[in-house]
Formats: sequence, structure tokens, C-alpha cells
Amino acid sequence: MNKEIERKFLVEDKNADSWRNAIYSEIRQGYLSVDKQRTVRVRIAGDSAYLTIKGITAGATRAEYEYPIPVAHAREMLDDLCLRPLIEKRRYRVGYGGLVWEVDEFYGDNAGLIVAEVELKSAQQVFDRPPWAGEEVTDDPRYYNANLVNHPYTKWKSR
Amino acid sequence: MNKEIERKFLVEDKNADSWRNAIYSEIRQGYLSVDKQRTVRVRIAGDSAYLTIKGITAGATRAEYEYPIPVAHAREMLDDLCLRPLIEKRRYRVGYGGLVWEVDEFYGDNAGLIVAEVELKSAQQVFDRPPWAGEEVTDDPRYYNANLVNHPYTKWKSR
Repeated sequence: MNKEIERKFLVEDKNADSWRNAIYSEIRQGYLSVDKQRTVRVRIAGDSAYLTIKGITAGATRAEYEYPIPVAHAREMLDDLCLRPLIEKRRYRVGYGGLVWEVDEFYGDNAGLIVAEVELKSAQQVFDRPPWAGEEVTDDPRYYNANLVNHPYTKWKSR
Repeated sequence: MNKEIERKFLVEDKNADSWRNAIYSEIRQGYLSVDKQRTVRVRIAGDSAYLTIKGITAGATRAEYEYPIPVAHAREMLDDLCLRPLIEKRRYRVGYGGLVWEVDEFYGDNAGLIVAEVELKSAQQVFDRPPWAGEEVTDDPRYYNANLVNHPYTKWKSR
């Protein structure tokens, strides 16, 4: 089991060259379970596909298991089995302050949402926040990708 | 994607030597999703562990994807993540009429239930039914293992 420690921020400067010019990949993912105690995600990222199981979130830490699967299987599962809507986003990998930040720009039912995540080695780790990273939303469950299935960003009443 | 074609029968002769003397393995499994359109099962069988995803059942046929995973991961997922109760059973592998029948004798919350399954190459395939195989329950959703989680056999009102 891996313990994932991540912090998540809204991206307020939506056109900053510093992340817009970074290398990106297209991600298409869906869920077989959005139960917060046992989410099951199917993801195609570039030429790879993964099945990922996550346990309940405790602060910034949660249990995670990830397995590579054939892309053809993932495509079938996304097309035929996963809950609607699917989550589609472009993920930029941006170096800042010696860490890699992942900036996710969502499409489709979640268009308009851009978040930045950084993975840490410990919950206490100190890091520099990039100028384009705004409000922290690590603990706000509305921004969990699994919750963006049943409550997509374009349907939120207050944003 | 595999298409699984199985037929399932209740075992009425619960002490027939012909299956009780067969080779068996102990199975411990649990579910990350019991949604009938996208079940996700974690199974430890003997020294092996698998993650299995199944789509909706259409007659005796359903989509199935299965991946081997480390037994240690499966044990953690069964202990910490899967829905309660877990499904525990002894599976006997019994040759009959040129086919392999799997006889599942359940324990725990499903004690008393014994079912026999045979996997076929096509829905039309003709086969011999063993004398200890009684009523067919292929199409009865109460006997789906995923449904035995929320509605275990010992809690059924009419059996």
C-alpha cells in the first residue's frame, strides 16, 4: 500500500505561461466506484492505462493501490462500465521550487476548473507555493475527482 | 474482455462423496462495488489474488476483466476497504461429463448455501447435469456473490 500525501490548490492565474507552456498529457478517466471509502478509477493517460483503488482520505493522506492494465481494456471499461460523466482533463507537469506540480485543466462537464496538486513526502514538508496557485482546497471534498462525477463543476451553484 | 458463460445450480445432495472428496481451495473475497453494472471484486484463492471487474449480466453472459495482484495488497483491501460482510467459501473442483464443475460451499453469513457452477463455451452448449445438482438458479440475482454481501443467505426469510 502506498500512502499518498498531496495538497491541492485552485489555479487563479489561468493563463500563466509558467504552467501553460509545460509538457502535458491528456487524461481520460472514469469510476467503477465513487464510494469515498473505496473509490475505483480507470484511467488512460497518454499511451498507458491504470486501475487505481483508493481508501478513505484522512487529512492529506490516503491508501492507494495502482495497477497497469491494457489500454484496450481501459477503453472498454470507460465506454461501457464506468459511471457518467467521465472526467477528461489535460495534465501539465510543472517544476517549481524543486517539486513537480501537476496542473489539471478540466474539460466537458467540469470545464472551467483548473487545480494544481503537489505530492509531498510527509504531511509536514515545507514547500514554495507558485504564484499562480491560489486558494488551498486539499480538504474540500467537492474537488475530489470522484465527486466531480456526480457533482460536475459546471453544475455548481456557487463558485 | 472475456465473455463469461456460466450456469449455476443449487446443490441438494450436500454430502455426496463425488464432490466432497474433490480437490478444493479456500476462497476469501470482498467487493469494492456491488453495483450490478460494475462489480469490483478482490479475491484471495489459495496462494493467488485477483482483482476482477464484471459488467452487467445479460442472461448467462457478462463482460469480465481479471488482473492478478499481490496477495498482501488483497489482504489489506479485504481487511480495510471492502464492503462487509466478506464472502468466504470452500471451492471444490469436480469433473463431470467432461466438464469441470465448481462447487462453492459458503461459510460465515452465508453458511448453509452450496451452489455448483459450470462454465460453458457457448450459451447453447449441451451438458450432463450431475445427480447432486438440483434447481437451476443462473438467473436468480439473490445468488450472485455480490448480492450475498448486502443480503447474506442466513438472513433470507424464505429458503
